[in-house]
Amino acid sequence: MGSEGNASRVDVADLVEQARAGRPRAVARLISLVEDESPALRDVSAALAPHTGRAHVVGLTGSPGVGKSTTTAALVGALRRRDHRVGVLAVDPTSPFSGGALLGDRIRMSDHATDDGVFIRSMASRGHLGGLSWATPQALRVLDAAGCDVILLETVGVGQSEVEVSGLADTTLVLLAPGMGDGIQAAKAGILEIGDVFVVNKADRDGAQSTRRELRSVLGMAEREADAWSPPIVMTSASRGEGLGDLVEQIDAHREHLAGERLAERRRARFRREIRAIALETVRRRVGDLSGHAALDALAQEVLDGATDPFRAADRVLDEL
Amino acid sequence: MGSEGNASRVDVADLVEQARAGRPRAVARLISLVEDESPALRDVSAALAPHTGRAHVVGLTGSPGVGKSTTTAALVGALRRRDHRVGVLAVDPTSPFSGGALLGDRIRMSDHATDDGVFIRSMASRGHLGGLSWATPQALRVLDAAGCDVILLETVGVGQSEVEVSGLADTTLVLLAPGMGDGIQAAKAGILEIGDVFVVNKADRDGAQSTRRELRSVLGMAEREADAWSPPIVMTSASRGEGLGDLVEQIDAHREHLAGERLAERRRARFRREIRAIALETVRRRVGDLSGHAALDALAQEVLDGATDPFRAADRVLDEL
Repeated sequence: MGSEGNASRVDVADLVEQARAGRPRAVARLISLVEDESPALRDVSAALAPHTGRAHVVGLTGSPGVGKSTTTAALVGALRRRDHRVGVLAVDPTSPFSGGALLGDRIRMSDHATDDGVFIRSMASRGHLGGLSWATPQALRVLDAAGCDVILLETVGVGQSEVEVSGLADTTLVLLAPGMGDGIQAAKAGILEIGDVFVVNKADRDGAQSTRRELRSVLGMAEREADAWSPPIVMTSASRGEGLGDLVEQIDAHREHLAGERLAERRRARFRREIRAIALETVRRRVGDLSGHAALDALAQEVLDGATDPFRAADRVLDEL
Repeated sequence: MGSEGNASRVDVADLVEQARAGRPRAVARLISLVEDESPALRDVSAALAPHTGRAHVVGLTGSPGVGKSTTTAALVGALRRRDHRVGVLAVDPTSPFSGGALLGDRIRMSDHATDDGVFIRSMASRGHLGGLSWATPQALRVLDAAGCDVILLETVGVGQSEVEVSGLADTTLVLLAPGMGDGIQAAKAGILEIGDVFVVNKADRDGAQSTRRELRSVLGMAEREADAWSPPIVMTSASRGEGLGDLVEQIDAHREHLAGERLAERRRARFRREIRAIALETVRRRVGDLSGHAALDALAQEVLDGATDPFRAADRVLDEL
């Protein structure tokens, strides 16, 4: 692949410096490097490490049709009015295509396309790396190092990714809309547990108040510890620009709630998962690379001869790795 | 689990000796041990190793309704008439239940239930161990060490397991039946490639000859090397006991074709896959066991502090394993 050839010649330290100075092209290039899993991926991650941890990552989840993209675009506007530097990362776990470029079809984002306080990137999250777990955290680190105060992480399409988003976010927004036909009761059980802030979007529509009441009733049944965060419900109409101020306030309130040890523990849990996922994937590749390897052939012959068994043979493979 | 407690006290060497002497209870106990993944699994595999490699493993695959169970039962009869010692392993990849006991509902097998030249076992293949790849080969080894000349490996239910069966078998039978509504052309592409012997079962039914013609035509299009095996088509009516002699002859012919280096290479390929799968699963468990491990917590803290990145942290986890 051409990009890999280029990547190996890339001056990662220089790119990171440029990204930290807010140069959009450097940010885009770094995200492409981590998305392509170029040989530079490890160098990029190492170079970013000292410059991360500042950005607040806000994940947006919800069924298709609730208005995630519209809400993301409206949130960008609301955050910009507060002079926040904003990153947007749209991940499509179902697309086999790399979305390395700006999402041309996200018309609503075009308001922000020329704003140098906003970075917008979309990326594909190819299935073979465990969904969001590999490239996405690195892309978040790029936007973090580039000085974003807030990063909005949105998944496009449907799937299991809702819960994964919350695993990568400091604050998870769960979006609902009236008249979606599924109701709160029918919402996937998991989604009520991951929400830090609930958003009833399309609040101008019939049924918005009953959706809110139903949601409040279900949330009210959850048992919480005394000092635990109690997830608020915000009514918005993202397409009309209504309720975004409230939403930003609730995001800020949750951020303040977390600040300190709660945020640290949430992030440590995230890094534990990430380190485990990388370790496992690394071994998976090394073991996969063994196909046709002489040592493996020799071990298979020993099993054939009855001189060893596959478990002891596997131990020897692992000893060699 | 009670079975694990018992397993750890079990005298594996003694059980293997009893199984080699053909004691059905020892055979059943050993298969339960490998199926339960008891702590004795590795000991069992090691103790079996010197006593395996003699049995010819015949895999039966085909869509539900073609008569796999009936054919398996009829084959047992045909093989017994030739004085072969026969093992039957029925694997249900879709069942969450352990099938440790004789399959009470497989009425047709009851003819053989009191025959001490036949071992019949069913087992569940729980999803988390990569389908058939973990316990099934160990169960085959038990039946092999118990002196079976032929082991019939049959999957119950549907799924991706057809191709996996051929990966564990020396000879793969692909069963078809007329009037199944799917036709040869519609058969999964992969299934025509894995068949060493094709069986058109229910040959007494309308359409059997046209199924045979169609199959012959499709198989005739496949390119083969000059000394390659050309898969024969056998017509059977397993429920009437017709064609089983032909089928046994074709299985024997394929066995003779393989004898020597072809069989060795087929089995080496199988053991390479098995060793890789065990190595990977071993690491997966070790990494999974790290949850809450102090070293992982410390590494997550370093990532939080920006002192390292998750890739270098993962390398250190792997160094410690």
